[in-house]
Amino acid sequence: MKTFVMKSIGRVGFAEKPVPKPGPFDAIVKTTNALICTSDSHTVHGAIGPRENLTLGHEAVGVVHEVGAEVRGFRPGDRVVVGAITPDWGDPASQAGHSSQSGQALGGWKFANIKDGVFAEYFHVNDADANLAHIPATVADEAAVYCADMLSTGLMAAENAAIPMGGTVAIFALGPVGLMATAGAKLCGAGLIIGIDNVPRRLELARKYGADVTIDFSRQDPVAEVVQLAEGVGVDSAIEALGGDITFQNAVKVTKPGGTISNAGYHGGGEFVHIPRLDWGVGMAEKTIRTGLCPGGRLRMERLLRLVERGRVDPTLLTTHRFRFDEMAEAFEMMDEKRDGIIKPLILFG
Amino acid sequence: MKTFVMKSIGRVGFAEKPVPKPGPFDAIVKTTNALICTSDSHTVHGAIGPRENLTLGHEAVGVVHEVGAEVRGFRPGDRVVVGAITPDWGDPASQAGHSSQSGQALGGWKFANIKDGVFAEYFHVNDADANLAHIPATVADEAAVYCADMLSTGLMAAENAAIPMGGTVAIFALGPVGLMATAGAKLCGAGLIIGIDNVPRRLELARKYGADVTIDFSRQDPVAEVVQLAEGVGVDSAIEALGGDITFQNAVKVTKPGGTISNAGYHGGGEFVHIPRLDWGVGMAEKTIRTGLCPGGRLRMERLLRLVERGRVDPTLLTTHRFRFDEMAEAFEMMDEKRDGIIKPLILFG
Amino acid sequence: MKTFVMKSIGRVGFAEKPVPKPGPFDAIVKTTNALICTSDSHTVHGAIGPRENLTLGHEAVGVVHEVGAEVRGFRPGDRVVVGAITPDWGDPASQAGHSSQSGQALGGWKFANIKDGVFAEYFHVNDADANLAHIPATVADEAAVYCADMLSTGLMAAENAAIPMGGTVAIFALGPVGLMATAGAKLCGAGLIIGIDNVPRRLELARKYGADVTIDFSRQDPVAEVVQLAEGVGVDSAIEALGGDITFQNAVKVTKPGGTISNAGYHGGGEFVHIPRLDWGVGMAEKTIRTGLCPGGRLRMERLLRLVERGRVDPTLLTTHRFRFDEMAEAFEMMDEKRDGIIKPLILFG
Amino acid sequence: MKTFVMKSIGRVGFAEKPVPKPGPFDAIVKTTNALICTSDSHTVHGAIGPRENLTLGHEAVGVVHEVGAEVRGFRPGDRVVVGAITPDWGDPASQAGHSSQSGQALGGWKFANIKDGVFAEYFHVNDADANLAHIPATVADEAAVYCADMLSTGLMAAENAAIPMGGTVAIFALGPVGLMATAGAKLCGAGLIIGIDNVPRRLELARKYGADVTIDFSRQDPVAEVVQLAEGVGVDSAIEALGGDITFQNAVKVTKPGGTISNAGYHGGGEFVHIPRLDWGVGMAEKTIRTGLCPGGRLRMERLLRLVERGRVDPTLLTTHRFRFDEMAEAFEMMDEKRDGIIKPLILFG
Repeated sequence: MKTFVMKSIGRVGFAEKPVPKPGPFDAIVKTTNALICTSDSHTVHGAIGPRENLTLGHEAVGVVHEVGAEVRGFRPGDRVVVGAITPDWGDPASQAGHSSQSGQALGGWKFANIKDGVFAEYFHVNDADANLAHIPATVADEAAVYCADMLSTGLMAAENAAIPMGGTVAIFALGPVGLMATAGAKLCGAGLIIGIDNVPRRLELARKYGADVTIDFSRQDPVAEVVQLAEGVGVDSAIEALGGDITFQNAVKVTKPGGTISNAGYHGGGEFVHIPRLDWGVGMAEKTIRTGLCPGGRLRMERLLRLVERGRVDPTLLTTHRFRFDEMAEAFEMMDEKRDGIIKPLILFG
Repeated sequence: MKTFVMKSIGRVGFAEKPVPKPGPFDAIVKTTNALICTSDSHTVHGAIGPRENLTLGHEAVGVVHEVGAEVRGFRPGDRVVVGAITPDWGDPASQAGHSSQSGQALGGWKFANIKDGVFAEYFHVNDADANLAHIPATVADEAAVYCADMLSTGLMAAENAAIPMGGTVAIFALGPVGLMATAGAKLCGAGLIIGIDNVPRRLELARKYGADVTIDFSRQDPVAEVVQLAEGVGVDSAIEALGGDITFQNAVKVTKPGGTISNAGYHGGGEFVHIPRLDWGVGMAEKTIRTGLCPGGRLRMERLLRLVERGRVDPTLLTTHRFRFDEMAEAFEMMDEKRDGIIKPLILFG
Repeated sequence: MKTFVMKSIGRVGFAEKPVPKPGPFDAIVKTTNALICTSDSHTVHGAIGPRENLTLGHEAVGVVHEVGAEVRGFRPGDRVVVGAITPDWGDPASQAGHSSQSGQALGGWKFANIKDGVFAEYFHVNDADANLAHIPATVADEAAVYCADMLSTGLMAAENAAIPMGGTVAIFALGPVGLMATAGAKLCGAGLIIGIDNVPRRLELARKYGADVTIDFSRQDPVAEVVQLAEGVGVDSAIEALGGDITFQNAVKVTKPGGTISNAGYHGGGEFVHIPRLDWGVGMAEKTIRTGLCPGGRLRMERLLRLVERGRVDPTLLTTHRFRFDEMAEAFEMMDEKRDGIIKPLILFG
Repeated sequence: MKTFVMKSIGRVGFAEKPVPKPGPFDAIVKTTNALICTSDSHTVHGAIGPRENLTLGHEAVGVVHEVGAEVRGFRPGDRVVVGAITPDWGDPASQAGHSSQSGQALGGWKFANIKDGVFAEYFHVNDADANLAHIPATVADEAAVYCADMLSTGLMAAENAAIPMGGTVAIFALGPVGLMATAGAKLCGAGLIIGIDNVPRRLELARKYGADVTIDFSRQDPVAEVVQLAEGVGVDSAIEALGGDITFQNAVKVTKPGGTISNAGYHGGGEFVHIPRLDWGVGMAEKTIRTGLCPGGRLRMERLLRLVERGRVDPTLLTTHRFRFDEMAEAFEMMDEKRDGIIKPLILFG
């Protein structure tokens, strides 16, 4: 079968591999739609170390092709989505409620990390009954594929932010995760949602997804502006959706005493992430800092699909470009260079 | 000043009383809008025991008329809303996070219970800085007055229900509290909202407020229907918004193991409320039963006003009738008898 | 191998069965110590319906005899404990944090319910890596075996009670679960622990496990006494450890507004469990009712073993009688009739 | 009356001031016992900016001397303790459950910060009904005075650490707060408590207060040692009780994915506190960072007193030195220089 791989650090391309076989609890899925994630680019550039001929991609939907003997809930032909994170549910971390950390830190992240990813005609899913979910007939593949990562991560960012009903929230960076965090803040009952970025298209999308106010940080000081909008005392909750040291510091600064900073961004560089000491109340202002990694699993996927099915959120506004799988190299390059205002490129399989 | 009082059990009417004076931390508010609550009827019929010439009403907005010497945040002329519950914030119950129970069980409920209520040209507010909130210029009195009780109680019902993001919820009884609980369930990120009643106007309003499905219990078995809609296993969360023993039992029945039953209704009769033993998993199915009483206080009111200001919910759809204060007797009688499909009657002061 | 079975409702006895074989993720354990539970008696008397030649028992420790090909963390010869509840960790209920409810209500309870139990020379454990735990060298089998159910259930009762640091708690019924709940309340930082029963030996043990005050309900009104001890307002938390309607009602009565009732008892009879309406604050006093079923799993067992290893609690004070496996019939009869002040009989295997 | 004041930055001494008078809700307390806190030294050295003739001290017990007209729960002659933090309970931050942040960040901290402290023959307490607590007859002044700050802060550190029942915890720095955090970890049900310091007397006290293992960081690498003790994966919870950047970093390093870092230390210097990026799981390992400031209020004090009364913790082991009030200058100097292995000096008033 045809796959799109990281050949080595900095090099990508197509490669032919055999169709995988399932273990007794696993499934093989025939891919129909996939999305490229910025973290695919990071991986190729070496963020997680060297890899050789590793199939890329972790966001996909498809049709079940084959299941192991012990799989009970899925059959060949079923339309399914799989979370980007496919935990080992029996692991102690999962038993403690942290399934994305099963096995080790970030250990639930397997696709295109410790095993082949989903940019392939077929891909392998561990523990199919626990990690796959059926796509309702009324939900299109293009919408369902956003559940795998963007919706799960973005909504998690809002859930971790502990936004009180009617509370105030600021979201730093409005890429796809920040935009879904914006939608998530609205779904969490926020009373004032402030989005911060400097790309007009993103600011506009943020308003569509629920931002009441947007701040272009290239024109205004976002910290001063957020605090002023939040009655001078700061917001209840701040979301960091970039993985930047400055956005993280700003998130701490704009949060009121007793509030929560929810970090969703992957911090890719530097020895330290910096907490501004005085704004953190010298370690006594009850500002909680939480982090998370894209929740996976059947239950999570079913709940996200329900939100899409019932029209609570339309993630497909994020799709700015469409490619056939055989145009993957071009799509990847465009995403890599963030050309043409790209937000999410959708990949259509044969 | 003119007031509308409970003269004795079963008897209401107008009475003349002096305008109240504030203590050092208190305020006197000149009423502009008020709402009649079903519990006003209950009170008149003796639900909380005998009262003599007690001014009725606990839902009102107005303009600050006078403040005590120690009040810092409010001045005569300010447009304000006051929660139906006006807690003593220093009480141990408030320190424990249960301000509606300050002093004793339900002790935060003072208006038309242990002191005169708001159906008067002027009313008294204890601890003004903690219990009043400014109404934003863009929010009309008619909308703001719903924050006092209906929005606070209805949204509390949904918050207490611990609805997971994308989860399923069933709401038993769609009076004004149930309808605001429906809006609340949507604001909490529910993925499937099921409303149950038998009055067409209420079922229709429930769909406007966010119910995905409504069930007319006079035509269908609500328990079987809800369980079937919730994939055969039951809903994550059920809300009881009536105070009925049967609706409470049904709420327990439709909730899945591990789910939450949120009781918002006032249970007015009988020695016991009944938990169906087997549906409760013989006391081991991890079905949590929570209750609450309309949260009050400045912070709560400000947050609710923010939701109204930003268009997250429009409570004024509940207003079915309007009366002048001098038509209070007629309004009260209509509410008492639930005539003419009445949901909430708005009372306009001179 | 030799097993002790329920032959039919009301009849027990020994039976010969083949040593079980493990599936790829399972283990077979050679039993060394077991405990009889009151629920074994209930089962024999028909509480969960008819069963034929079902091996009884769910509390045991032993030595690993054989493991499936996919088991990574355990090898033949390892000393292990297994929780009474052995969940399916990938099930949606487990993903939601309610593993004891996996599959269906109480579905994690498999031993002596939907498969053979542990009163046998060998027993089978599903998902060994997730459901077994190694016993530290310094912990005796007799102590470790209490982790399976008594410690897990009793401490859960205290954890579910949401006891504030320094808070007050009342525990209704001081059988083995109530006694471990007493120890649990102390481990949760309770400032005043009140134990209620009428058996002197139990009251004495409760004081050893941390009860500051004990009440003999045959001599004093427990409700009045608890409320008075709790400064007239009631306790923060009440634990029901019997499964009785009256103890449940009393638990609701003695709990202050805003407090928590934790039900650990199995309610074996009646159509309803009764909530006293007025003491429940007519459904508005913020008294939360929680329930649970003995948490299982490797992580839980490891944590409980740590408490035993470090001397935080000594469960072996519960052992009142000791029997060899071939004396099982006698032990069972004694437990069934609660003769000779029996609390827990320890069964020693060859 | 005689008071001990900060005359200006770096200068302390006695000063004569008039006995304060209470407002309607306030009380005046005649001091019997007080404790010097390291933060008193910090204040004198300029940590919170210049002050002129400010009475120092925030840890004291005494006898009520006079109460305002509206005080209901206290009378002259009552033995009382007052929390170091005396919140404004009606403030929005208090309504949100963050009373120590009332008014502004750390705004509940009034004694020796924004008003005169307790190193005086008499001191003033705002909102006496909400901020004072009666001392039980069986609790000595010397024990009760620890509730004001050391017990409240130390136990908070453990409560914020979200230690699971039977979980593992590491405590960095074993001054009085760290030692009370050690006692707190035991009260929270920790199964393994590891204390880290380099002063033998403190390590020994830590073992008395519940540490199972102590690490002398001058002899061993505390990070490697803690991780190894915690089965190679790290502890569930880490407590920072110093306010040091290195101890904070170490706390993040030793915490497992999904665990909690509880910061109780006052971070006195530097622009930033540093999160080690990789050990923080690049912002995705679900390691939560919480902070807090000594909870105050009547309810908190009553609960802490209960723990002392029932023998759950004996804080008086911290008292290493005793002085009369007229020896205050000497006591302060000794504390300032941490001479003679001083932990807490008790000050006895006439």
